[in-house]
Amino acid sequence: MVLDLEGDLVALLRTLVDLESVSGNEKAIADAVEEALRRYDHLEVERDADLVMARTNLGRDERIVIAGHLDTVPVAGNLPSWTTGEGDDLLIWGRGSCDMKGGVAVQLAAAARLAEPNRDITWIFYDNEEIAEEFNGLARVARSHPDWLSGSFAVLGEPSNAGIEGGCQGTLRVRITLTGRAAHSARAWMGDNAIHAAAPLLTRLLAYEPRQIVVDGLTYREGLNAVKIEGGIAGNVIPDRCVVELNYRFAPDKSVEQAVAYLRDDVLAGFELEVVDAAAGARPGLDQPAAAAFVAAVGAAPSAKFGWTDVARFAAMGVPAVNFGPGNPSKAHADDEFCPAAELTSCYEALVRWLS
Amino acid sequence: MVLDLEGDLVALLRTLVDLESVSGNEKAIADAVEEALRRYDHLEVERDADLVMARTNLGRDERIVIAGHLDTVPVAGNLPSWTTGEGDDLLIWGRGSCDMKGGVAVQLAAAARLAEPNRDITWIFYDNEEIAEEFNGLARVARSHPDWLSGSFAVLGEPSNAGIEGGCQGTLRVRITLTGRAAHSARAWMGDNAIHAAAPLLTRLLAYEPRQIVVDGLTYREGLNAVKIEGGIAGNVIPDRCVVELNYRFAPDKSVEQAVAYLRDDVLAGFELEVVDAAAGARPGLDQPAAAAFVAAVGAAPSAKFGWTDVARFAAMGVPAVNFGPGNPSKAHADDEFCPAAELTSCYEALVRWLS
Repeated sequence: MVLDLEGDLVALLRTLVDLESVSGNEKAIADAVEEALRRYDHLEVERDADLVMARTNLGRDERIVIAGHLDTVPVAGNLPSWTTGEGDDLLIWGRGSCDMKGGVAVQLAAAARLAEPNRDITWIFYDNEEIAEEFNGLARVARSHPDWLSGSFAVLGEPSNAGIEGGCQGTLRVRITLTGRAAHSARAWMGDNAIHAAAPLLTRLLAYEPRQIVVDGLTYREGLNAVKIEGGIAGNVIPDRCVVELNYRFAPDKSVEQAVAYLRDDVLAGFELEVVDAAAGARPGLDQPAAAAFVAAVGAAPSAKFGWTDVARFAAMGVPAVNFGPGNPSKAHADDEFCPAAELTSCYEALVRWLS
Repeated sequence: MVLDLEGDLVALLRTLVDLESVSGNEKAIADAVEEALRRYDHLEVERDADLVMARTNLGRDERIVIAGHLDTVPVAGNLPSWTTGEGDDLLIWGRGSCDMKGGVAVQLAAAARLAEPNRDITWIFYDNEEIAEEFNGLARVARSHPDWLSGSFAVLGEPSNAGIEGGCQGTLRVRITLTGRAAHSARAWMGDNAIHAAAPLLTRLLAYEPRQIVVDGLTYREGLNAVKIEGGIAGNVIPDRCVVELNYRFAPDKSVEQAVAYLRDDVLAGFELEVVDAAAGARPGLDQPAAAAFVAAVGAAPSAKFGWTDVARFAAMGVPAVNFGPGNPSKAHADDEFCPAAELTSCYEALVRWLS
């Protein structure tokens, strides 16, 4: 299996899609990527488990990191790949076509092409993005080889309709446990109903108007939602416990601590919060000089990224990052995911314009 | 194993308690009860599975039914029986002592003693009261031998602190399913949160003032409670479904149909109800002549029974019924259930006074 990085982008994407690489099973695709990149003298190639790093070392003033993950969510009868349409309407279908082998194809082709880029580039192709944080390849090399991720600006090839989606929102999950007093429901007045006690909380959530916040010129839409509720043990018992789990998605102008304080002291004041998990957001970083050149090369106004992505990992290391890749993000993980060929081309050309 | 029905009531109760009879395992205790009753010529004894029926046939104008169940909930390290205290403070402990072998002991002793009662009596000792309705011994003979349960008044020996608890409340369980539209929680505005949609329902339940209703001179306290709530499938998904289960305990002036209509058209108007299960209540029937004599013999003002019991089965057959037995109903099913010896005696003496 030798990947042709200089031929047709659609053929390259289909070959990548057909190399099944559900999280944990990235060896074959990582081998193929490593072998293909090692054929280019302008790249120094290294490997860490199933993560492949390739970089130029031209002594440029600036270094850019461009990363994409090789793994996919489980296959759902959507392999091998197929296409529909022709020309400008050609779509490539199959598991991973959208999330995010389209981005990987673009990055591989650009890595081969950009032998003398105007900025040094570190290309990262990594494993285990779709599963628990502890397995994430990017998180692993942030510990084992932090220099592989250093740079003044990073691009993550997640699907963004071939536009620039800046930064990402933070996410916080908290649990509120309402308590009461159990009793037989035939003598309900001897108890205190914990499910009824959730009424003021849900009423507050129902009335809550999520904020829209402009950060570095991009507008973020927050959200605060109950994502789980559970209470009651039997059809004849007044429940003494009701647990509500909330998810707060917050704009990247706030730290995790500020997000917790906002819920605790403001929106949900009066309820006792227990933080279940949290991940900081990432500012879009479009005020960086490299970013301005990138935006000009892409030629479209950037928009805010709402979902949490690995750009936050770069942000946490002090590297501003954006999402930029072919494919509609709402098709990520969908069984009918696909990637438009036209977006493969436009993303590839934008990267080459920016870095040539 | 021969039960001595004419000796010490405490000894009789302890023998019954020590005959383990968790629902489905009543054969040994039913055998002992049948054998003991067959020794009395004034009783006609019949058996149906593990239900024992014994009745006088004196041609009296009136027939009374007195019933008690032989089974218990599962043993929880509380067998064999033991006692604490002495004299008026003697307590008999162990599984079934309260619910309801105390009542069974009283009824067996009275059945032996009342050779020429002033009213004909049908004594019923039955199986499978503590488990699903379909197994209930009383329900079974209501179909196979309806004449065994016919009479103008019935007494059920369920624990009632040796006082008369009249009738029972009905119970109705309904389910309300709130729906919404699923979305990723990072783009919450594309969804519609079904858990938040429960806010108006829970607010209505929280504000609901349960009614107190006088029926045949007894005051019943109703209750309307959420007994279960469930919604949400993942920490990053706006839930499109939230299910709330409610239990309505209603006074016996209402039929099941009236109870459903009251929720549907009044308290919970605007929500779509699905009836999960329902059991009618029973009026106390204390306006019957036999009841007045019974109340006089017991010598204490009757009170309303809140929990659902098999008195409702008699009521459904047109036989007014009350609960009357030793033991505190709040100790039924408790691991530390017990029966006060003084209540055994007072219940026995009241039955004998009434029917001699």
